[in-house]
Amino acid sequence: MSDPAAIRVELPPWALERESSAGAYRTDEERMRVAIEAADLNVQAGTGGPFGAAIFESASGRLVALGVNSVVRLANSVLHAEMVAFMRAQARVGRYSLAAPGLPGHTLYSSCDPCAMCLGAALWAGVRRIVCGATREDAVALRFDEGPVFPDSYRYLAARGIEVAHGVLRDEARGVLERYRAAGGIIYNA
Amino acid sequence: MSDPAAIRVELPPWALERESSAGAYRTDEERMRVAIEAADLNVQAGTGGPFGAAIFESASGRLVALGVNSVVRLANSVLHAEMVAFMRAQARVGRYSLAAPGLPGHTLYSSCDPCAMCLGAALWAGVRRIVCGATREDAVALRFDEGPVFPDSYRYLAARGIEVAHGVLRDEARGVLERYRAAGGIIYNA
Repeated sequence: MSDPAAIRVELPPWALERESSAGAYRTDEERMRVAIEAADLNVQAGTGGPFGAAIFESASGRLVALGVNSVVRLANSVLHAEMVAFMRAQARVGRYSLAAPGLPGHTLYSSCDPCAMCLGAALWAGVRRIVCGATREDAVALRFDEGPVFPDSYRYLAARGIEVAHGVLRDEARGVLERYRAAGGIIYNA
Repeated sequence: MSDPAAIRVELPPWALERESSAGAYRTDEERMRVAIEAADLNVQAGTGGPFGAAIFESASGRLVALGVNSVVRLANSVLHAEMVAFMRAQARVGRYSLAAPGLPGHTLYSSCDPCAMCLGAALWAGVRRIVCGATREDAVALRFDEGPVFPDSYRYLAARGIEVAHGVLRDEARGVLERYRAAGGIIYNA
Protein backbone atom coordinates (compact mmCIF):
# COMPACT_ATOMS: atom_id res chain seq x y z
CA MET A 1 0.00 0.00 0.00
CA SER A 2 1.37 3.44 -0.87
CA ASP A 3 1.46 5.86 2.02
CA PRO A 4 -0.13 9.29 1.51
CA ALA A 5 1.77 10.70 4.49
CA ALA A 6 5.27 9.29 4.07
CA ILE A 7 7.64 10.94 6.54
CA ARG A 8 11.19 11.95 5.73
CA VAL A 9 13.74 12.39 8.52
CA GLU A 10 17.11 13.14 7.01
CA LEU A 11 20.03 15.46 7.49
CA PRO A 12 20.90 18.04 4.85
CA PRO A 13 23.88 16.82 2.78
CA TRP A 14 26.43 19.11 4.46
CA ALA A 15 25.48 17.71 7.89
CA LEU A 16 25.56 14.12 6.68
CA GLU A 17 29.08 14.72 5.48
CA ARG A 18 30.16 16.27 8.79
CA GLU A 19 28.65 13.44 10.76
CA SER A 20 30.74 10.92 8.87
CA SER A 21 34.01 12.70 9.59
CA ALA A 22 36.33 10.58 11.67
CA GLY A 23 38.14 11.57 14.84
CA ALA A 24 37.57 11.53 18.56
CA TYR A 25 36.51 14.52 20.59
CA ARG A 26 37.86 14.46 24.10
CA THR A 27 36.57 17.37 26.16
CA ASP A 28 33.07 18.69 26.68
CA GLU A 29 34.15 21.87 24.95
CA GLU A 30 35.42 20.05 21.85
CA ARG A 31 32.20 18.10 21.60
CA MET A 32 29.99 21.10 22.27
CA ARG A 33 31.75 22.94 19.47
CA VAL A 34 30.51 20.28 17.05
CA ALA A 35 26.92 20.98 18.13
CA ILE A 36 27.32 24.76 17.97
CA GLU A 37 29.02 24.60 14.61
CA ALA A 38 26.13 22.47 13.29
CA ALA A 39 23.67 25.11 14.52
CA ASP A 40 25.67 27.86 12.84
CA LEU A 41 26.07 26.01 9.55
CA ASN A 42 22.38 25.12 9.54
CA VAL A 43 21.52 28.81 9.46
CA GLN A 44 24.23 29.69 6.95
CA ALA A 45 23.14 26.89 4.61
CA GLY A 46 19.51 27.90 4.95
CA THR A 47 18.58 24.39 6.05
CA GLY A 48 16.90 25.26 9.36
CA GLY A 49 16.81 27.04 12.67
CA PRO A 50 19.82 27.89 14.88
CA PHE A 51 19.98 24.68 16.89
CA GLY A 52 22.41 21.80 16.68
CA ALA A 53 22.96 18.61 18.63
CA ALA A 54 25.52 15.81 18.67
CA ILE A 55 25.62 12.46 20.42
CA PHE A 56 28.99 11.05 21.41
CA GLU A 57 30.13 7.86 23.04
CA SER A 58 30.96 9.26 26.46
CA ALA A 59 34.23 7.42 26.99
CA SER A 60 35.71 7.13 23.49
CA GLY A 61 34.58 10.53 22.23
CA ARG A 62 33.39 9.02 18.97
CA LEU A 63 30.69 11.05 17.20
CA VAL A 64 27.66 8.77 16.78
CA ALA A 65 25.06 11.14 15.35
CA LEU A 66 24.47 14.75 14.46
CA GLY A 67 21.17 16.60 14.51
CA VAL A 68 20.09 19.98 13.21
CA ASN A 69 16.77 21.73 13.49
CA SER A 70 14.78 20.57 10.45
CA VAL A 71 11.26 21.76 11.32
CA VAL A 72 10.72 24.12 8.41
CA ARG A 73 12.83 22.22 5.86
CA LEU A 74 10.94 18.96 6.39
CA ALA A 75 7.60 20.49 7.52
CA ASN A 76 7.71 18.51 10.76
CA SER A 77 7.46 20.15 14.18
CA VAL A 78 9.04 17.15 15.90
CA LEU A 79 12.38 17.62 14.19
CA HIS A 80 14.28 19.69 16.71
CA ALA A 81 18.03 19.11 16.58
CA GLU A 82 18.03 16.80 19.60
CA MET A 83 15.22 14.65 18.23
CA VAL A 84 17.00 14.16 14.92
CA ALA A 85 20.16 13.21 16.81
CA PHE A 86 18.32 10.68 19.04
CA MET A 87 16.67 9.03 16.05
CA ARG A 88 19.87 8.91 14.01
CA ALA A 89 21.92 7.51 16.89
CA GLN A 90 19.35 4.77 17.51
CA ALA A 91 19.15 3.96 13.80
CA ARG A 92 22.92 3.65 13.75
CA VAL A 93 23.14 1.27 16.71
CA GLY A 94 19.90 -0.49 15.75
CA ARG A 95 18.35 -0.25 19.23
CA TYR A 96 15.52 1.81 20.71
CA SER A 97 17.67 2.77 23.66
CA LEU A 98 21.24 4.05 23.69
CA ALA A 99 21.49 2.47 27.14
CA ALA A 100 20.73 -1.03 25.82
CA PRO A 101 22.92 -3.81 27.24
CA GLY A 102 26.27 -4.07 25.49
CA LEU A 103 26.34 -0.47 24.29
CA PRO A 104 28.80 2.12 25.63
CA GLY A 105 27.41 5.15 27.48
CA HIS A 106 26.26 8.08 25.37
CA THR A 107 26.13 11.82 26.00
CA LEU A 108 23.95 14.38 24.23
CA TYR A 109 25.48 17.77 23.47
CA SER A 110 22.91 20.41 22.59
CA SER A 111 23.68 23.96 21.51
CA CYS A 112 20.79 25.14 23.73
CA ASP A 113 18.91 23.88 26.80
CA PRO A 114 16.39 21.34 25.45
CA CYS A 115 12.72 22.27 25.20
CA ALA A 116 10.08 20.22 27.03
CA MET A 117 9.71 17.75 24.16
CA CYS A 118 13.43 17.14 23.80
CA LEU A 119 14.03 16.87 27.55
CA GLY A 120 11.28 14.27 27.79
CA ALA A 121 12.71 12.46 24.78
CA ALA A 122 16.16 12.38 26.40
CA LEU A 123 14.70 10.28 29.20
CA TRP A 124 13.53 7.61 26.74
CA ALA A 125 16.53 7.85 24.40
CA GLY A 126 18.97 6.31 26.82
CA VAL A 127 21.60 9.05 27.03
CA ARG A 128 23.20 9.09 30.46
CA ARG A 129 24.33 12.70 30.35
CA ILE A 130 23.20 15.95 28.70
CA VAL A 131 25.51 18.91 28.11
CA CYS A 132 23.96 22.23 27.06
CA GLY A 133 25.33 25.46 25.59
CA ALA A 134 22.98 28.46 25.54
CA THR A 135 20.54 28.52 28.46
CA ARG A 136 16.78 28.58 28.59
CA GLU A 137 17.04 32.22 29.62
CA ASP A 138 19.13 33.01 26.53
CA ALA A 139 16.54 31.35 24.30
CA VAL A 140 13.55 32.96 25.97
CA ALA A 141 15.22 36.39 25.84
CA LEU A 142 15.33 35.95 22.06
CA ARG A 143 11.64 34.86 22.06
CA PHE A 144 12.20 31.16 21.47
CA ASP A 145 9.61 29.23 23.49
CA GLU A 146 11.07 26.33 25.48
CA GLY A 147 7.78 24.90 26.71
CA PRO A 148 6.94 23.53 30.16
CA VAL A 149 10.39 22.82 31.60
CA PHE A 150 10.78 23.42 35.34
CA PRO A 151 13.49 22.86 37.95
CA ASP A 152 11.52 19.74 38.92
CA SER A 153 11.94 18.43 35.35
CA TYR A 154 15.70 18.28 35.83
CA ARG A 155 15.29 16.73 39.27
CA TYR A 156 13.14 14.06 37.64
CA LEU A 157 15.94 13.22 35.20
CA ALA A 158 18.58 13.32 37.95
CA ALA A 159 16.54 10.82 39.99
CA ARG A 160 16.80 8.47 36.99
CA GLY A 161 20.56 8.86 36.74
CA ILE A 162 20.74 11.45 33.96
CA GLU A 163 23.23 14.19 34.72
CA VAL A 164 22.83 17.61 33.07
CA ALA A 165 25.45 20.34 32.64
CA HIS A 166 24.47 23.84 31.51
CA GLY A 167 26.30 26.75 29.94
CA VAL A 168 29.22 24.98 28.25
CA LEU A 169 30.55 27.44 25.63
CA ARG A 170 27.46 29.47 26.45
CA ASP A 171 28.61 32.69 24.76
CA GLU A 172 29.40 30.96 21.47
CA ALA A 173 26.10 29.13 21.54
CA ARG A 174 24.10 32.24 22.35
CA GLY A 175 25.91 34.06 19.56
CA VAL A 176 24.34 31.73 16.98
CA LEU A 177 20.86 32.50 18.33
CA GLU A 178 21.56 36.23 18.34
CA ARG A 179 22.83 36.31 14.78
CA TYR A 180 19.82 34.32 13.60
CA ARG A 181 17.43 36.69 15.33
CA ALA A 182 19.26 39.79 14.09
CA ALA A 183 19.07 38.48 10.52
CA GLY A 184 15.29 38.16 10.79
CA GLY A 185 15.11 34.36 10.96
CA ILE A 186 11.74 32.73 11.56
CA ILE A 187 10.89 32.31 15.26
CA TYR A 188 8.08 29.98 14.46
CA ASN A 189 6.91 29.22 17.98
CA ALA A 190 7.22 32.70 19.47
CA MET B 1 25.45 10.11 -0.49
CA SER B 2 23.92 7.01 1.09
CA ASP B 3 22.84 7.45 4.68
CA PRO B 4 24.12 4.90 7.23
CA ALA B 5 21.38 5.89 9.66
CA ALA B 6 18.28 6.17 7.47
CA ILE B 7 15.19 6.54 9.64
CA ARG B 8 11.86 4.86 8.93
CA VAL B 9 8.68 6.30 10.39
CA GLU B 10 5.73 4.31 9.10
CA LEU B 11 2.55 2.73 10.33
CA PRO B 12 2.10 -1.02 10.24
CA PRO B 13 -0.10 -2.01 7.27
CA TRP B 14 -3.23 -2.64 9.36
CA ALA B 15 -3.04 0.88 10.81
CA LEU B 16 -2.42 2.46 7.43
CA GLU B 17 -5.55 0.77 6.18
CA ARG B 18 -7.63 1.97 9.13
CA GLU B 19 -6.37 5.51 8.76
CA SER B 20 -7.58 5.63 5.18
CA SER B 21 -11.11 4.52 6.09
CA ALA B 22 -13.65 7.22 5.28
CA GLY B 23 -16.31 8.63 7.60
CA ALA B 24 -16.72 11.41 10.12
CA TYR B 25 -16.54 10.95 13.84
CA ARG B 26 -18.74 13.37 15.72
CA THR B 27 -18.38 12.99 19.46
CA ASP B 28 -15.30 12.87 21.66
CA GLU B 29 -16.22 9.33 22.54
CA GLU B 30 -16.46 8.19 18.91
CA ARG B 31 -13.06 9.72 18.19
CA MET B 32 -11.48 8.39 21.35
CA ARG B 33 -12.66 4.92 20.43
CA VAL B 34 -10.53 5.15 17.26
CA ALA B 35 -7.43 5.86 19.38
CA ILE B 36 -8.20 3.11 21.90
CA GLU B 37 -8.93 0.60 19.17
CA ALA B 38 -5.60 1.43 17.54
CA ALA B 39 -3.85 0.79 20.88
CA ASP B 40 -5.63 -2.52 21.27
CA LEU B 41 -4.98 -3.67 17.70
CA ASN B 42 -1.33 -2.65 18.01
CA VAL B 43 -0.90 -5.14 20.84
CA GLN B 44 -2.96 -7.86 19.16
CA ALA B 45 -0.99 -7.50 15.91
CA GLY B 46 2.31 -7.53 17.81
CA THR B 47 3.31 -4.24 16.22
CA GLY B 48 3.96 -2.26 19.39
CA GLY B 49 2.98 -1.06 22.83
CA PRO B 50 -0.57 -0.43 24.08
CA PHE B 51 -0.87 3.19 23.04
CA GLY B 52 -2.82 4.74 20.18
CA ALA B 53 -3.50 8.29 19.01
CA ALA B 54 -5.63 9.92 16.36
CA ILE B 55 -5.81 13.47 15.04
CA PHE B 56 -9.14 14.77 13.79
CA GLU B 57 -10.30 18.01 12.25
CA SER B 58 -12.14 19.41 15.25
CA ALA B 59 -15.22 20.68 13.40
CA SER B 60 -15.69 18.20 10.57
CA GLY B 61 -14.66 15.10 12.50
CA ARG B 62 -12.51 13.90 9.62
CA LEU B 63 -9.70 11.53 10.64
CA VAL B 64 -6.42 13.13 9.52
CA ALA B 65 -3.80 10.79 10.98
CA LEU B 66 -3.43 7.74 13.15
CA GLY B 67 -0.48 6.90 15.37
CA VAL B 68 0.51 3.77 17.24
CA ASN B 69 3.41 3.14 19.55
CA SER B 70 6.25 1.98 17.27
CA VAL B 71 9.26 2.19 19.59
CA VAL B 72 10.27 -1.47 19.56
CA ARG B 73 9.11 -2.24 16.01
CA LEU B 74 11.16 0.58 14.49
CA ALA B 75 13.92 0.73 17.15
CA ASN B 76 13.19 4.40 17.81
CA SER B 77 12.36 5.78 21.26
CA VAL B 78 10.74 8.89 19.78
CA LEU B 79 7.92 6.96 18.15
CA HIS B 80 5.20 7.14 20.78
CA ALA B 81 1.70 7.02 19.31
CA GLU B 82 1.18 10.77 19.59
CA MET B 83 4.50 11.58 17.87
CA VAL B 84 3.69 9.32 14.94
CA ALA B 85 0.27 10.98 14.65
CA PHE B 86 1.74 14.51 14.75
CA MET B 87 4.29 13.68 12.05
CA ARG B 88 1.75 11.94 9.84
CA ALA B 89 -0.79 14.74 10.14
CA GLN B 90 1.82 17.35 9.23
CA ALA B 91 3.05 15.25 6.32
CA ARG B 92 -0.51 14.99 5.08
CA VAL B 93 -1.20 18.75 5.22
CA GLY B 94 2.35 19.63 4.18
CA ARG B 95 2.89 22.15 6.99
CA TYR B 96 5.01 22.12 10.15
CA SER B 97 2.05 23.35 12.19
CA LEU B 98 -1.51 22.08 12.20
CA ALA B 99 -2.45 25.61 13.23
CA ALA B 100 -1.00 27.15 10.06
CA PRO B 101 -3.16 29.82 8.40
CA GLY B 102 -5.88 28.36 6.21
CA LEU B 103 -6.04 25.03 8.04
CA PRO B 104 -9.04 23.95 10.12
CA GLY B 105 -8.54 23.36 13.85
CA HIS B 106 -7.21 19.96 14.89
CA THR B 107 -7.67 17.87 18.04
CA LEU B 108 -5.42 15.08 19.31
CA TYR B 109 -7.07 12.04 20.87
CA SER B 110 -4.67 9.90 22.87
CA SER B 111 -5.52 6.61 24.53
CA CYS B 112 -3.46 7.72 27.56
CA ASP B 113 -2.32 11.02 29.11
CA PRO B 114 0.73 12.07 27.05
CA CYS B 115 4.22 11.68 28.50
CA ALA B 116 6.51 14.70 28.88
CA MET B 117 7.89 14.36 25.35
CA CYS B 118 4.49 14.09 23.72
CA LEU B 119 2.98 16.90 25.79
CA GLY B 120 5.83 19.20 24.78
CA ALA B 121 5.45 18.08 21.17
CA ALA B 122 1.73 18.91 21.26
CA LEU B 123 2.64 22.52 21.92
CA TRP B 124 4.68 22.72 18.72
CA ALA B 125 2.40 20.52 16.61
CA GLY B 126 -0.40 23.06 16.43
CA VAL B 127 -3.27 21.03 17.87
CA ARG B 128 -5.73 23.28 19.70
CA ARG B 129 -7.18 20.61 21.93
CA ILE B 130 -6.03 17.33 23.51
CA VAL B 131 -8.43 14.62 24.67
CA CYS B 132 -7.03 11.78 26.78
CA GLY B 133 -8.32 8.35 27.81
CA ALA B 134 -6.41 6.53 30.54
CA THR B 135 -4.85 8.86 33.09
CA ARG B 136 -1.28 9.34 34.20
CA GLU B 137 -2.23 7.57 37.44
CA ASP B 138 -3.50 4.57 35.45
CA ALA B 139 -0.24 4.40 33.49
CA VAL B 140 2.01 4.84 36.52
CA ALA B 141 0.03 2.21 38.46
CA LEU B 142 0.96 -0.22 35.69
CA ARG B 143 4.62 0.92 35.84
CA PHE B 144 4.68 2.97 32.64
CA ASP B 145 6.85 6.04 33.22
CA GLU B 146 5.24 9.29 32.03
CA GLY B 147 8.25 11.54 32.62
CA PRO B 148 8.34 15.05 34.10
CA VAL B 149 4.73 16.19 33.62
CA PHE B 150 3.33 18.43 36.36
CA PRO B 151 0.11 20.39 36.94
CA ASP B 152 2.09 23.45 35.80
CA SER B 153 2.77 21.70 32.47
CA TYR B 154 -0.96 21.72 31.71
CA ARG B 155 -1.28 25.31 32.91
CA TYR B 156 1.52 26.22 30.48
CA LEU B 157 -0.44 24.72 27.59
CA ALA B 158 -3.69 26.32 28.73
CA ALA B 159 -2.01 29.73 28.77
CA ARG B 160 -1.21 29.15 25.09
CA GLY B 161 -4.78 28.28 24.23
CA ILE B 162 -4.53 24.49 24.29
CA GLU B 163 -7.43 22.86 26.10
CA VAL B 164 -7.00 19.39 27.62
CA ALA B 165 -9.70 16.91 28.62
CA HIS B 166 -8.87 13.82 30.67
CA GLY B 167 -10.54 10.49 31.29
CA VAL B 168 -12.71 10.14 28.17
CA LEU B 169 -13.59 6.42 27.93
CA ARG B 170 -11.08 5.96 30.71
CA ASP B 171 -12.11 2.42 31.65
CA GLU B 172 -11.81 1.15 28.07
CA ALA B 173 -8.45 2.83 27.65
CA ARG B 174 -7.09 1.52 30.93
CA GLY B 175 -8.32 -1.93 29.97
CA VAL B 176 -5.88 -2.04 27.06
CA LEU B 177 -2.98 -1.18 29.38
CA GLU B 178 -4.07 -3.79 31.91
CA ARG B 179 -4.40 -6.57 29.33
CA TYR B 180 -0.96 -5.72 27.92
CA ARG B 181 0.59 -5.82 31.36
CA ALA B 182 -1.18 -9.03 32.32
CA ALA B 183 0.06 -10.70 29.12
CA GLY B 184 3.67 -9.85 30.04
CA GLY B 185 4.20 -7.11 27.46
CA ILE B 186 7.48 -5.18 27.53
CA ILE B 187 7.39 -2.12 29.82
CA TYR B 188 10.54 -0.76 28.34
CA ASN B 189 10.81 2.42 30.37
CA ALA B 190 9.72 1.09 33.74
